[in-house]
Amino acid sequence: MSTSMQSPEDRLIARYFRPLATAPGAFGLIDDAAALTPPAGCDLVLTTDGVIAGVHFFPDDPPQLVSRKVLRMNLSDLAAKGAQPLGFLLSVALPAGFDDAWLGPFAQGLAGDAAHFSCPLYGGDTDQTPGPVSASIFAFGAVPEGKMVRRSTARTGDHIVVTGSIGDAAIGLQLRRDRMLARRWGLSADAAAELEDRYLLPQPRNALADVILQYASAAIDISDGLAGDLAKLCRASSVAAEIDAARVPLSDAARVAIAAEPALLETAITGGDDYEIVLTVRPEELAAFTEAARAAVVAVTEIGRVQAGEGARFLQDGKPLSFTRASYSHF
Amino acid sequence: MSTSMQSPEDRLIARYFRPLATAPGAFGLIDDAAALTPPAGCDLVLTTDGVIAGVHFFPDDPPQLVSRKVLRMNLSDLAAKGAQPLGFLLSVALPAGFDDAWLGPFAQGLAGDAAHFSCPLYGGDTDQTPGPVSASIFAFGAVPEGKMVRRSTARTGDHIVVTGSIGDAAIGLQLRRDRMLARRWGLSADAAAELEDRYLLPQPRNALADVILQYASAAIDISDGLAGDLAKLCRASSVAAEIDAARVPLSDAARVAIAAEPALLETAITGGDDYEIVLTVRPEELAAFTEAARAAVVAVTEIGRVQAGEGARFLQDGKPLSFTRASYSHF
Repeated sequence: MSTSMQSPEDRLIARYFRPLATAPGAFGLIDDAAALTPPAGCDLVLTTDGVIAGVHFFPDDPPQLVSRKVLRMNLSDLAAKGAQPLGFLLSVALPAGFDDAWLGPFAQGLAGDAAHFSCPLYGGDTDQTPGPVSASIFAFGAVPEGKMVRRSTARTGDHIVVTGSIGDAAIGLQLRRDRMLARRWGLSADAAAELEDRYLLPQPRNALADVILQYASAAIDISDGLAGDLAKLCRASSVAAEIDAARVPLSDAARVAIAAEPALLETAITGGDDYEIVLTVRPEELAAFTEAARAAVVAVTEIGRVQAGEGARFLQDGKPLSFTRASYSHF
Repeated sequence: MSTSMQSPEDRLIARYFRPLATAPGAFGLIDDAAALTPPAGCDLVLTTDGVIAGVHFFPDDPPQLVSRKVLRMNLSDLAAKGAQPLGFLLSVALPAGFDDAWLGPFAQGLAGDAAHFSCPLYGGDTDQTPGPVSASIFAFGAVPEGKMVRRSTARTGDHIVVTGSIGDAAIGLQLRRDRMLARRWGLSADAAAELEDRYLLPQPRNALADVILQYASAAIDISDGLAGDLAKLCRASSVAAEIDAARVPLSDAARVAIAAEPALLETAITGGDDYEIVLTVRPEELAAFTEAARAAVVAVTEIGRVQAGEGARFLQDGKPLSFTRASYSHF
C-alpha cells in the first residue's frame, strides 16, 4: 500500500495553522522544525507561558479570545524585556471533539494578533488529551546583544513606574464569575464590560518596548499582580519598594467599583492578569522616559521609589496597607 | 504588609529546575525571560514536542524517564535537521499532589540528559491542571545559516538510509501493555526489556547531526513510524520512495518477535516512537556518508531509493506490502 495520505493532525495543521505561518523559516509548517536567522547584533529573548481551561480561562470563553490571550501573555513578557517580537511556536492539547467549532475561531483570533504584533507562527505541536483544552506558546524576540532588560538591576533611588491601569482584569474576573456584582458596585453595563474585557483580552505594552529598552533600569510584566511582581523585582534586585497606593493608576470603572467596595483595592493591587509593566527608571532619566512614553502613546504613572531593604510596601495615608494574600499564584 | 515571600511556584522552580539552568542567559530562572546570543553565522532551529500522561506515556512510567523522553523527542528533531542543541524551555502542567515524589526524579532525569546532550534549561512555566500531568519542551539548536536539512529536498535517484533499528519501540509498547507477550514471542527477559526500554527511553541520533548536515539531501526524524514519516518526506519533496522491506534494520530482539508473529513486521514499520532518522543521500555521496557515519559510531542502513511519483512503497519479495494503517497518529 502507498502511504501518501495525510494524517488527521496534518490536515488540522494545514487547515487552521498554515495560514499563520507567514515567515519563510516556518516552511509552511511542513517540516519537523523551523529556521530563524537572528537579526544581526541581537540576542534572542525567549519566553513561554500557557493557559489551561478551568485554570486560566473559562471553558466557555470565546476561543478567539483564548488564543489571543495566550499569545499576548507572551508578548507582554517580551515587551517588559525591551524585546521586539520575532515569532512563536504553539503547542495545543485538544479534548476529543474540539476539532472545528473551537479550532476555527481559535486560529482566526491568533492570526489577527500574529499579524497585528508582527509575530508570526513558526511551528507547533497538536495532541489529543483526556484532560481540558490547553495551549502553550513559546515566543521569541530580539534585543541588541547584552541589552535584555532584567528584573535584577533596579537601584536605590530609582523611580517606580507602571503602564496603563492596574486591577481591571482582577475586578473583571470577579464580574466574569458573577455578573450581578456590577449592580452592587454601581457599574454601568459599559463599565462592567470594559473590566471584563480587560480580563478576557490583555493589552500588552509592546508599543513601549523600545522605550523600556532605552530607559528602564529594571522591569517585569505584571501577570501575578502588581504587589507580587514588584516584590519579585525587589527580591531579584536586593532592594525594597515603597509605593503610594493613592498613585496606583486605576481606570474610571475600577474607581467606581472600589468606591462601592473598598476591599477591591486589594484585589486590584494583588490580583493577576494585568499584563501591564512595572519598571524602574533612574532619577536623571525620568523626564526623558516620560516624554518618550508619551510619544509612544502608552500611559505611564510614577507610583513610588526604590529603597534599601527588602519587600514592596504599599502606603495609604502614610500607613502600610495589609494584604491578606501577597500575590496571585495558581499553586 | 511586605510582600517579599516566594510563591509556591517560585519555590518549586528554585528547588527542582534552577540546578538545570546552567547557561548564563537563563539568569538562574529568576527573570521573565531568557537571553540567548546566537552563534555567529548560524540560524536557529526551533522545534516543540510534548507528552501527556495516558496519551504518550503511562501514568506509572518512572518520572525520570518521562522527562528524558520528552527532551529526547525534541533532540531527535534537532538531529534530523543537522542542528546542534543550544537549549530548551519547559512547560509542565501538574495535577494536585504531583509536587515532590514526581517532580524530584523528573527534574533529576532531565538534568542528566541536559548535561549529556549539552542542552541546558533556559526557562519555563509550571501550572497546576485538573487534567493529567503533561510536559512540553521547546528546543532550539544551531545550523550554519541557510543550511537546515529539510524534508522537501529529496531528489529522484537518492539513496534512502535509516539510522539504528526500526520498530523496537512499537514492539516494546506492546510488551509494556502486556508482558505475557514476551513468552508467546519466545523473547528472553533481556530481549523483552531491551525492546521495552526503547519505548521508554528514545536514543536520539544527535551524534550524527554533523554528518546529516554535511551529507543528507533531506531528512526527517521517525516519531510516527518509518512508513508514515517517509511518506511525509516524499510528499514534501514531491517524490516517491521504494523500500526493500527485507533491508529495514531490525534488532535481534525484534527479529525474534517478528519470526514468532509475522504481523509485527507491520507494527515495526508503521509504529511510532523510533526516534531514528530517515534521510536521503545523493548517489555520489553515499560512500563518503557511510564512512562518516561509521566514524560517528552511528549504525546506518541503506533501505531503498527515491523515485518519481508519490508515496512510500515497501516491497517484500518484490510485492508491495499492504498495511492496515499508514502511520501512527494520536488523532
